[in-house]
Amino acid sequence: MAEKVNVCIVGSGNWGSAIAKIVGANAAALPEFEERVTMFVYEEMIDGKKLTEIINETHENVKYLKGHKLPTNVVAVPDLVEAAKNADILIFVVPHQFIPNFCKQLLGKIKPNAIAISLIKGFDKAEGGGIDLISHIITRHLKIPCAVLMGANLANEVAEGNFCETTIGCTDKKYGKVLRDLFQANHFRVVVVEDADAVEVCGALKNIVACGAGFVDGLKLGDNTKAAVIRLGLMEMIRFVDVFYPGSKLSTFFESCGVADLITTCYGGRNRRVSEAFVTSGKTIEELEKEMLNGQKLQGPPTAEEVNYMLKNKGLEDKFPLFTAIHKICINQLKPKDLIDCIRNHPEHMDTFIMPSPKL
Amino acid sequence: MAEKVNVCIVGSGNWGSAIAKIVGANAAALPEFEERVTMFVYEEMIDGKKLTEIINETHENVKYLKGHKLPTNVVAVPDLVEAAKNADILIFVVPHQFIPNFCKQLLGKIKPNAIAISLIKGFDKAEGGGIDLISHIITRHLKIPCAVLMGANLANEVAEGNFCETTIGCTDKKYGKVLRDLFQANHFRVVVVEDADAVEVCGALKNIVACGAGFVDGLKLGDNTKAAVIRLGLMEMIRFVDVFYPGSKLSTFFESCGVADLITTCYGGRNRRVSEAFVTSGKTIEELEKEMLNGQKLQGPPTAEEVNYMLKNKGLEDKFPLFTAIHKICINQLKPKDLIDCIRNHPEHMDTFIMPSPKL
Repeated sequence: MAEKVNVCIVGSGNWGSAIAKIVGANAAALPEFEERVTMFVYEEMIDGKKLTEIINETHENVKYLKGHKLPTNVVAVPDLVEAAKNADILIFVVPHQFIPNFCKQLLGKIKPNAIAISLIKGFDKAEGGGIDLISHIITRHLKIPCAVLMGANLANEVAEGNFCETTIGCTDKKYGKVLRDLFQANHFRVVVVEDADAVEVCGALKNIVACGAGFVDGLKLGDNTKAAVIRLGLMEMIRFVDVFYPGSKLSTFFESCGVADLITTCYGGRNRRVSEAFVTSGKTIEELEKEMLNGQKLQGPPTAEEVNYMLKNKGLEDKFPLFTAIHKICINQLKPKDLIDCIRNHPEHMDTFIMPSPKL
Repeated sequence: MAEKVNVCIVGSGNWGSAIAKIVGANAAALPEFEERVTMFVYEEMIDGKKLTEIINETHENVKYLKGHKLPTNVVAVPDLVEAAKNADILIFVVPHQFIPNFCKQLLGKIKPNAIAISLIKGFDKAEGGGIDLISHIITRHLKIPCAVLMGANLANEVAEGNFCETTIGCTDKKYGKVLRDLFQANHFRVVVVEDADAVEVCGALKNIVACGAGFVDGLKLGDNTKAAVIRLGLMEMIRFVDVFYPGSKLSTFFESCGVADLITTCYGGRNRRVSEAFVTSGKTIEELEKEMLNGQKLQGPPTAEEVNYMLKNKGLEDKFPLFTAIHKICINQLKPKDLIDCIRNHPEHMDTFIMPSPKL
């Protein structure tokens, strides 16, 4: 990397703008970073004025994070290549469907030894089915390493400066310190772990579990049952990573990206909320998305579908009875009330103590 | 053990009666158990009639679990020694303060090769300060092994037959199968682990964390902060067990006794509820116990005090900043709003990746 580390934030939505507050302040305060941080902003007109101009004059993203001042050293740039060309660290924080096209535009136009970090929760559909991790897509297209940042991090609460934690997954140890320095703040505490894939996969799988938690809420099965579903969901997350992204550490699931993000999603998230309504209203998920999410799509049901594709392929559906049942409930192959029957004889209940079986 | 395993339930409160439904049914159905299960019932008069007589005639504990039929093979016995004398397995499920006295009465009057299992959540104060585990007290007094059963198990939900999980901690592998057979039901799924102390300690420490979750709720700090406090609480639980009950496995904290019970307690428990009111009302915990708990005592604050005694003794307060802060808030040495400042530089944030430090 250069003597002064140049940073570009690719994206300027709610989460991108919240993180720009932290990253901008750190770049201004710490000697290792170049003060000026570029932020690629998709140009749009707001009341007859360009959004980049508004941001650069008022230092407020009036469209996506109203009421918060961005640091003055964060500079909005409407051209992606222009924003990224000098960057040593590229922070990707855009809806995942833009990633392949953005990478195509950037290929050959960025520093060859730049690194990326993805803040994008969720994943893409792999060709032929299954999961494609966003960090893998970035690395494949741009031929640079890509770390990830995931945690129990609701954007508005981060922007408010409420205390929270986050997890950076970074397979190459030599980038751990610079990434932590760039993101850590007094109210935003970073833990760096090596298990980048596990960190990223947690962010996708938790939404499946949240659907299960929502079904339990809709069925009014109570606190014990909900705790059991969340725990079994966590165990299937661990097992899934063990099968498809081997070599991960159990301790990674104790980080903010694991247990903490899972908990908040299973109590407060929209997958939980819509899944509860799915049971109580009898409407389809598509209908509820229109009514409750203003047409936006839930992540849980499609993730469950892709995961099921991977499990079926390996003949592993019965080792993941919760994920499997949630998928079948989402596509109306099972009734919500069948959920519990599906997990009653969960492999996790076949305890190692009495019947030895492999565990992570 | 005898050819047919004799079972006695010592206790007949809400949780004891709920578990009697399961244990009684299993003893009746499984050939390894003697069908007749004795239940020691502290005799009291209900509308001019003895409670034991009511239970034995109507098979309903009208005082502590109204509306549920107990299996007819569960026989209420008002004399403790009489109830326990033939037992191969003694199930202790009474308020913990009764244990020393009950053990004194039973010493020398039970089968010498009997085993015990404690369903008592919480712990006793050790002489001179610190924690004394109930299972250790039972073993010390009766000179027999004592396993434990803990989990996200609200008694009324278990009695209703709602699906849940539980954890049995049993250091001696040879008792694992018989204990699982005795407690497992279609709606009550058992996992047996060796780490008995860790299982039991989780049940006490979770109540400290729940106070912290309640403070966050009272301070209206939001979902990110609450998730961080729950996660850091879990990490301190793990570290505490590592220091004071070494040799435990990280995987034990993923069982129902660990993460699942912690989650439900931090969302639904009364420690959380009273701690939230502590912040919003400005009243003392004693005042709130009178108002909100009908004079019953919270477990979180005294547990925090005993744990603090142990930490102070070892000079470890700064390695457990969350437990320490919660204790100091409970005794008015700190304001609730100081909680976050205390955990901002938590040892868990000094990640092993960048600065190697011992972790479980």
